[in-house]
Amino acid sequence: MVDLNAVHEVTHIDNVKLNEDETAVVIIDQTRLPNHLEYLSLSKPKEMYDAIKLLQIRGAPAIGIMAGYSMYVLGKQHKDLPYPFFKQKMTDLGDYLNSSRPTAVNLKWAIDRLLAVVNSGEGEPVEVTVNRMGIEAKKIHEEDIEMCRKISEYGLTLVKPGDGILTHCNAGPLATSRYGTAIGPIFLGKERGIDFKVYADETRPLLQGARLTSYELQKAGVDVTLICDNMASMVMKNGWVQAVFVGCDRIAANGDFANKIGTSGVAILAKYYGIPVYSLGPTSTIDINCPTGDDIKVELRDPEEIKNMWYSEPMALAETKCYNPAFDVTDHSLLTGIVTDRGIIYPPFKENIAKLFEKKE
Amino acid sequence: MVDLNAVHEVTHIDNVKLNEDETAVVIIDQTRLPNHLEYLSLSKPKEMYDAIKLLQIRGAPAIGIMAGYSMYVLGKQHKDLPYPFFKQKMTDLGDYLNSSRPTAVNLKWAIDRLLAVVNSGEGEPVEVTVNRMGIEAKKIHEEDIEMCRKISEYGLTLVKPGDGILTHCNAGPLATSRYGTAIGPIFLGKERGIDFKVYADETRPLLQGARLTSYELQKAGVDVTLICDNMASMVMKNGWVQAVFVGCDRIAANGDFANKIGTSGVAILAKYYGIPVYSLGPTSTIDINCPTGDDIKVELRDPEEIKNMWYSEPMALAETKCYNPAFDVTDHSLLTGIVTDRGIIYPPFKENIAKLFEKKE
Repeated sequence: MVDLNAVHEVTHIDNVKLNEDETAVVIIDQTRLPNHLEYLSLSKPKEMYDAIKLLQIRGAPAIGIMAGYSMYVLGKQHKDLPYPFFKQKMTDLGDYLNSSRPTAVNLKWAIDRLLAVVNSGEGEPVEVTVNRMGIEAKKIHEEDIEMCRKISEYGLTLVKPGDGILTHCNAGPLATSRYGTAIGPIFLGKERGIDFKVYADETRPLLQGARLTSYELQKAGVDVTLICDNMASMVMKNGWVQAVFVGCDRIAANGDFANKIGTSGVAILAKYYGIPVYSLGPTSTIDINCPTGDDIKVELRDPEEIKNMWYSEPMALAETKCYNPAFDVTDHSLLTGIVTDRGIIYPPFKENIAKLFEKKE
Repeated sequence: MVDLNAVHEVTHIDNVKLNEDETAVVIIDQTRLPNHLEYLSLSKPKEMYDAIKLLQIRGAPAIGIMAGYSMYVLGKQHKDLPYPFFKQKMTDLGDYLNSSRPTAVNLKWAIDRLLAVVNSGEGEPVEVTVNRMGIEAKKIHEEDIEMCRKISEYGLTLVKPGDGILTHCNAGPLATSRYGTAIGPIFLGKERGIDFKVYADETRPLLQGARLTSYELQKAGVDVTLICDNMASMVMKNGWVQAVFVGCDRIAANGDFANKIGTSGVAILAKYYGIPVYSLGPTSTIDINCPTGDDIKVELRDPEEIKNMWYSEPMALAETKCYNPAFDVTDHSLLTGIVTDRGIIYPPFKENIAKLFEKKE
């Protein structure tokens, strides 16, 4: 039925890159989508910090790529410093960027990769170290494209043509590179002429599902239906969903995982309706030093995001309290499998994650 | 600890009433809250129809009260017709108003009560019949206040001072009269100096939880925290919720019930976390002729409510599809009890609902 050799044109979005002379990181300002496709050119630490903090760039892998490029761009600005000062400066800048979002493990991971290059630079001209930082940053990006492709390949084996897939938040091309993670199989499928029906939770309060996921799927010609978060139960009850594909911001050693607020609720609903739940993400998202989900610190965000963001008028009284956690932690018992670039991890997660890391080392 | 004789001042909201000369129904335009407290004076059938359709008035009991007053006001306008024409006119107007929202059983129930008065009017001056319509409409209102008080009394027995109560959508004073149903126990508790911590789901897409529930609770001095619908799982996981109180738009004979979209999801989460779920509503909400939830017709609403309502700019592309059901049906197996004005109904619901109706007749 499906011609695997056919090549179908799919619009891929380039959400993070270096400018031509590699003096700035260029990103799509995701807070302006879907009505405005605007690019930001970032060359100052504060701009980079704010871009992450304000979610102009978001999605763990995209943040990692952007952080790598940022460290490189900042390294170039300080290449004339003597090595000890350069090293101190880069360490400080790394700490600063790292403080922009505490939950995203890829941020620290990418910064640490660039700092490892810095730390290995003793005895060589700083300019050479900076050049190696550029190579490392590009490698992070290329690796991510390759990782997303592999995740998408594995994910594609879990669904049949025509299946309904529900996703929460945004873990597509805008959150990563090229295919994306959670909805990577859908983009890869599209390239091969395999169509799915996607249900995208709008994902309050920041509406990444509406503004980003439904946007990039619609632009790629995928059959996507946007729903409010509280409609997922009904969509599942209707029998329209054969699999839940979500991303992950951090996976603990026992398989518990942090992802956008609402993910745990979706997983509980799916379990109730007997629908498999897969978390899709690169191996770098697994934090083997984090024993369980209880050890994941969850960021609390501004109540105004709930009461006042996007709206022409506030939706609640100024004095009304809000609780606005950015993430929640989904218990591994709700999870069918973790789809990584190195294969699909099934329960028992603790043992199988440990095995994966043993193999890696 | 709690002084049951103390009287605490609580702000009660008068959301539907007749104007002074009883020529119009006056309602709070709930679509304008929380920023604007505006009243609408309705005297034309189209205005009444639109008020229901556009959710300027919403909540099953409030719609019932408003429909009763509307039939009376319209009856006065046609009191000079000969009886057969008057009867036909009122029947047509009843059908018209009834078509504004197919799911709300109280709408039909109230219209039918007024039409019963009309139908019993043969042989008496039409003006006398119209006067009796006014008495009947006021009776519906008074009965509702009394029903809400009783529901609140029964509901109050289910929680302890200081308990956390999660609610979805709006089933408070704005949706009913005086105390409300789902959050009636909280208002009644407040009058008696008993405080609860309330978590109000914002309830997308129409945001009744943010705009109405958090508004009326805040105005009454209740400790309320507003959350996005997708945060309910985390709030429950945190151990902050001891009971879920929701309203109901229609209860089937087996205990399945239709309520605002998202209710079934909340009930599934509560079951997962071991939290009791109560549906609070007047006996009139039970439709004994509707065998199960599968027989409840669910209204699909405009996709623009998801993509474009309230916002300064659309949140998804114009061509993106949405699925926008106004209600969902919660299976009776997820329900701990139905709190009515005639007591709390526990499982087995089918048997116990039948018993209640036998007693009634």
